[in-house]
Amino acid sequence: MKPKLTLVGAGPGDGELITLKGIRALRQADVVLYDDLANHTLLDFAPEAASTIYVGKRAGKASFTQQEINELIVRCAQEYGHVVRLKGGDPYVFGRGFEEQEYARQYGIQCEVVSGVSSCIAVPASQGIPVTSRGVSESFWVITGTTRKGELSDDLRLAVQSKATVIVLMGMGKLDELCAMYCQAGRGHLPMAIVQNGTRADEQCVIGQVWNMPMLAAEQGVGAPAVLVIGEVVSLHPSYLAACMQNVSMAQTRPL
Amino acid sequence: MKPKLTLVGAGPGDGELITLKGIRALRQADVVLYDDLANHTLLDFAPEAASTIYVGKRAGKASFTQQEINELIVRCAQEYGHVVRLKGGDPYVFGRGFEEQEYARQYGIQCEVVSGVSSCIAVPASQGIPVTSRGVSESFWVITGTTRKGELSDDLRLAVQSKATVIVLMGMGKLDELCAMYCQAGRGHLPMAIVQNGTRADEQCVIGQVWNMPMLAAEQGVGAPAVLVIGEVVSLHPSYLAACMQNVSMAQTRPL
Repeated sequence: MKPKLTLVGAGPGDGELITLKGIRALRQADVVLYDDLANHTLLDFAPEAASTIYVGKRAGKASFTQQEINELIVRCAQEYGHVVRLKGGDPYVFGRGFEEQEYARQYGIQCEVVSGVSSCIAVPASQGIPVTSRGVSESFWVITGTTRKGELSDDLRLAVQSKATVIVLMGMGKLDELCAMYCQAGRGHLPMAIVQNGTRADEQCVIGQVWNMPMLAAEQGVGAPAVLVIGEVVSLHPSYLAACMQNVSMAQTRPL
Repeated sequence: MKPKLTLVGAGPGDGELITLKGIRALRQADVVLYDDLANHTLLDFAPEAASTIYVGKRAGKASFTQQEINELIVRCAQEYGHVVRLKGGDPYVFGRGFEEQEYARQYGIQCEVVSGVSSCIAVPASQGIPVTSRGVSESFWVITGTTRKGELSDDLRLAVQSKATVIVLMGMGKLDELCAMYCQAGRGHLPMAIVQNGTRADEQCVIGQVWNMPMLAAEQGVGAPAVLVIGEVVSLHPSYLAACMQNVSMAQTRPL
């Protein structure tokens, strides 16, 4: 028995957006550690004899700290062999996957990464919004809304000036602040979308402009987990124009 | 027979990095249109009766223009039913997927998008480079090296100032110009990697710093298709320090 860790990207939520390579890893797992964003039906690919351990958050409270997860990976690999760490989206996109891998390597555990379909691209796509489109956007910039310090990333200060499609993950807690930054930079008119539970059956989307997005999000009750998309590509969404007209009529009746 | 178009992301090159959903679409295809970046072994998932048509480039020369591809999609959908357009990486990342879909929609053809594993994340990962890592990078910015005008994207002028991990796709033709932009901005010291044929058996990687990358790339003969990665996360690559020491000794013997 050789201790091994495979970080597997589970994809954005839709259980069919996992890769063949990810499934192969799951089929060879002795232990699977999973959390909330990974579709739990994927656990069915693991052998019956494999243990599956939930390490996510219940009622907003983490059941394990990151350090505890790191230690659990090492203990499970040493005791049982092949640990699959099933992570929502892609393991290297804000998933702390690299930290888990480096921790395990310190104990001589062989590590492999199986890339996944990232929410940053697939969740906008689920709404028909391409992150790039010729003549509309030549780049996209993916930023975390939750830094170590609990503040908005400094990178956002530059992002509000850019022509890139800006995609913010884990940003719902900072929505008001984020939108205010755009408005202060004179860019509150930019098209914006919030997509909650993207690619899942309960996907919900709000389309509008940056300036009125906090109000729309509150009205329509969208919350985490959500992907925020800001930029001209959002105007390619089929209901963008209707959303704008509705916003105009709202703006006429409700002063800002 | 109902005409239908499904844009399927084939993933970055490794034939196992396609999704279950992508395979399901291929299995239901009447026609598959594919090009160079999609792994051709994926065509085996299509039914034997399905036609497969190559629409890529041979010897650098496109066999079909974009307009011809658009028209072919429509003709095939109308004549045969379900067209799968198999595209390398993700269909909405610089793939002109959105254009193909919008063209088909004008003819009343139903369209679906199956997101894929994007090279922008998976190719660096294949070298052990995470696009984000806590305390190192809070964002990543994906930019095309080839705009409509054939010039470097204006977005790069802002990107050279940012702390984001910068990932340039289709950038090998502009490598010298790109690196010069970083050097002129005083950022030539940033760690940089070029990964050719990422996730394929013939993957090749050059690690160094921005200032000496054009020289290293020429020496080691890396070329398109390649992903360029610039930023502190590249220093997490296991051979980064060795590469730097080698570069220092080269810099001592060869004046810039």
